[in-house]
Amino acid sequence: MTSPIRVTVWGENFHEQSERDRAGMAERYPSGMHGAIATGISELLGDSAAVTVATQDQEGHGLTEEVLNETDVLTWWGHATHASVDDAVVDRVHQRILGGMGLLVLHSAHFSKIFRRLMGTTCSLAWRNSGDTELIWSVNPSHPITVGVPQPIVINEHEMYGEFFDIPAPDELIFISAFSSGEVFRSGCCWRRGKGKVFYFSPGDQEYPVYNHPDIKRVLANAVRWATPEHTADRADFTAPAVINQPAPQFDRGGIAEGASA
Amino acid sequence: MTSPIRVTVWGENFHEQSERDRAGMAERYPSGMHGAIATGISELLGDSAAVTVATQDQEGHGLTEEVLNETDVLTWWGHATHASVDDAVVDRVHQRILGGMGLLVLHSAHFSKIFRRLMGTTCSLAWRNSGDTELIWSVNPSHPITVGVPQPIVINEHEMYGEFFDIPAPDELIFISAFSSGEVFRSGCCWRRGKGKVFYFSPGDQEYPVYNHPDIKRVLANAVRWATPEHTADRADFTAPAVINQPAPQFDRGGIAEGASA
Amino acid sequence: MTSPIRVTVWGENFHEQSERDRAGMAERYPSGMHGAIATGISELLGDSAAVTVATQDQEGHGLTEEVLNETDVLTWWGHATHASVDDAVVDRVHQRILGGMGLLVLHSAHFSKIFRRLMGTTCSLAWRNSGDTELIWSVNPSHPITVGVPQPIVINEHEMYGEFFDIPAPDELIFISAFSSGEVFRSGCCWRRGKGKVFYFSPGDQEYPVYNHPDIKRVLANAVRWATPEHTADRADFTAPAVINQPAPQFDRGGIAEGASA
Amino acid sequence: MTSPIRVTVWGENFHEQSERDRAGMAERYPSGMHGAIATGISELLGDSAAVTVATQDQEGHGLTEEVLNETDVLTWWGHATHASVDDAVVDRVHQRILGGMGLLVLHSAHFSKIFRRLMGTTCSLAWRNSGDTELIWSVNPSHPITVGVPQPIVINEHEMYGEFFDIPAPDELIFISAFSSGEVFRSGCCWRRGKGKVFYFSPGDQEYPVYNHPDIKRVLANAVRWATPEHTADRADFTAPAVINQPAPQFDRGGIAEGASA
Repeated sequence: MTSPIRVTVWGENFHEQSERDRAGMAERYPSGMHGAIATGISELLGDSAAVTVATQDQEGHGLTEEVLNETDVLTWWGHATHASVDDAVVDRVHQRILGGMGLLVLHSAHFSKIFRRLMGTTCSLAWRNSGDTELIWSVNPSHPITVGVPQPIVINEHEMYGEFFDIPAPDELIFISAFSSGEVFRSGCCWRRGKGKVFYFSPGDQEYPVYNHPDIKRVLANAVRWATPEHTADRADFTAPAVINQPAPQFDRGGIAEGASA
Repeated sequence: MTSPIRVTVWGENFHEQSERDRAGMAERYPSGMHGAIATGISELLGDSAAVTVATQDQEGHGLTEEVLNETDVLTWWGHATHASVDDAVVDRVHQRILGGMGLLVLHSAHFSKIFRRLMGTTCSLAWRNSGDTELIWSVNPSHPITVGVPQPIVINEHEMYGEFFDIPAPDELIFISAFSSGEVFRSGCCWRRGKGKVFYFSPGDQEYPVYNHPDIKRVLANAVRWATPEHTADRADFTAPAVINQPAPQFDRGGIAEGASA
Repeated sequence: MTSPIRVTVWGENFHEQSERDRAGMAERYPSGMHGAIATGISELLGDSAAVTVATQDQEGHGLTEEVLNETDVLTWWGHATHASVDDAVVDRVHQRILGGMGLLVLHSAHFSKIFRRLMGTTCSLAWRNSGDTELIWSVNPSHPITVGVPQPIVINEHEMYGEFFDIPAPDELIFISAFSSGEVFRSGCCWRRGKGKVFYFSPGDQEYPVYNHPDIKRVLANAVRWATPEHTADRADFTAPAVINQPAPQFDRGGIAEGASA
Repeated sequence: MTSPIRVTVWGENFHEQSERDRAGMAERYPSGMHGAIATGISELLGDSAAVTVATQDQEGHGLTEEVLNETDVLTWWGHATHASVDDAVVDRVHQRILGGMGLLVLHSAHFSKIFRRLMGTTCSLAWRNSGDTELIWSVNPSHPITVGVPQPIVINEHEMYGEFFDIPAPDELIFISAFSSGEVFRSGCCWRRGKGKVFYFSPGDQEYPVYNHPDIKRVLANAVRWATPEHTADRADFTAPAVINQPAPQFDRGGIAEGASA
């Protein structure tokens, strides 16, 4: 049996602690959003995943070299404190992704340093928090991330995210959301960066119990499996692409052929 | 001054004639949908386009060798009589597109022979005709097809088309529509086939005056310009890609270099 | 344990039989190219695949409803007799792919009816048979199809295929080949069509023992796994996308519609 | 007549000055590489372009707010001094691209700060400087960047760049190069970032007179036109995408919202 996928669920852990939000958060998410996300993945992937949690208030934001060296897939939820995420941590995470670690970027993490670094765009969007109904439609029925969820997934009440979502065109577009207020949003998007796979998934505003939603948990579990780095040995090799300096030529110079354009 | 873009606007001309529909059509479209589409393009492109109309009931469906040889961009609206479009005409049109002619595929023409031929998929979708409001959102703000239209374009009443729209992933996704009933649809999509450019645009059910809508006319005019084949001479050369048989080698065999993997 | 992937390896079986070629073929491929391909997949996937062979000279080209209903992934090698492949068989295969069956298209099968049907382009290319060395370079290091093969894969002697290869831009570009004569070719390409996954891989001219090459066998085995349809139950459901006619609205113009999933 | 495209050709201006290189550079490029690039664009675009030059050793690297505010398309050549390009300048350039300014990234500028910022990957590659012959093959015959150049473009002697080129998959792949030594490289690549268009083109090592090559000049002129921002007024509006905060809903939960565009 192949080794479990090592998943680190990272949370900002701000709303869970803040005076304004902590009561509501405790109701919806007794173990914090990160706890709920981790639980959801564990439930659905069972022994095939080993899930741990890390938060921004830990040393090294919980993402030390040691932790990252033991992480195949990282999930990231942030909102209020992107600016105080340490650049050295972002560098480490970025390097590990380019070397093969998968990354799930959730909801307001569209403005995280790591996501903006990987995308190269503003990652801005339109938003309004008025408890609209969100319908998440799949546009990619053969994609592993869409397995086992209805068409559409319904979130009765959620914050609206609307286009124009300033991201590079996804390598693969998985979901498009509609809101009862009329907006649309590319809510499930895949990219490859270096040897790593990145999945952005928009549901997950802290004011709504979205990470307890069975279909949302299913998408995240599917995405963790999709984002797992490929490997032949027991574990992937996390070497990022790098310059290859003066490799020996494959062919000797025979010369330009007669009659060729060269 | 460069030669005008030669546009042929093709219409099935069925609803314009049918007993059930002709009265309503005459009100919305005195010159038929094809007439309205042609007029819209002419108005907006002026002297830079030379626009003619062809219909299915003409000889050769109005798409003889002579007509196609004088066409840079073809627009196609069909609905009720796709099956009776002559395969020989479809072959001619297909070949001309692969050689560089642009194609605009409109509304129910997602089920036209030519579009299904170019896509290789079922081109099926969900639909309901209950006069919902459609909002057409741009997701590609740097694209020439989106120039000069608001975000979103609003069609007060239109037939609903919804995902899953069984098309190959567009090379470029331009518009996503939302309907008041909650569905979404990739309503503006670009592909390249051979040397030709193809744009599918979903608005245009015959029961609604959509082709008189200023923003819809603007998109079609932009799309005609986008779909025009590239050329250095006065006109494009419409030679489709073909096998190149035994071309002379560019390089002589010098041999496999020492130390190479080869 | 999950059910084995049911693979059908289809071969034209012409060169294996023809007077001119059969001696050479018997040397390189005692069981035919299809036999070698099937053996390669079996060796590498072991119990996780159940591999059978079918040839054009069988009844229904060996691709009856019964056979296709038991096929998760089909591989296709054809060259000399594309034109005599029965259209009804092509229809069946096409429908099954749109419903989820994976398809591997090999070498000269770029001109097969099924591939041209799925692509909508001429699928033409440049070619020359002068035993050039081919180097197959990966441009997608995180892709499952590239696992376990060197960079580059070396084919000492092979027929040259060169650009411009008239295909739609691949959804995912996996390999680019270089030839000692100077040409390049997009030799490993992925597309999605309906619910099915399609992989074109160019190595495999009948005059060279390519399907005995360990790295080529590895790519094919990886590709079979990649192309396997997604499924939650024991087997995938092979229902192709189809029109959804008048679905109930998700939202009312005035609240959530009664009977909708919202 | 429409206003000329305002092009700023930016050069590092290091090799033109350095003791080791300046003699050879003066022979190949009497006005520097930036001078040759600028001249090439001017020659081919005539009155339709207004071309100026800026270099790293100027104040603000020649890319002050004033200069950028008057730039529609920026070309960037750098090699030895990427690290000393001022981050504040990179920020300005980045913001302007997201607002619509086109960017041509040339040769060793794959390692420029601005390109790495836009891509989010290492942008590393394989390289060897042994005067190999490079053949630049088009894989996109309908693309404006490929107009008017032969297939292939031949560079008799050039530095080798080889895969794996660690970039995001291009939105559009235009050229693939082959080298006489056997490597391949995706040498012409297009992406969109925000409202801007980015074209990477690999030819242009300082030791070879590549920017005097007529086909290379043609590609650059085509690319300048392709990269020009779209605009309806006399000039493009260079506002980058930004958050839209609490837009009024388009639809009411019970009808069309007052004050919305619907």
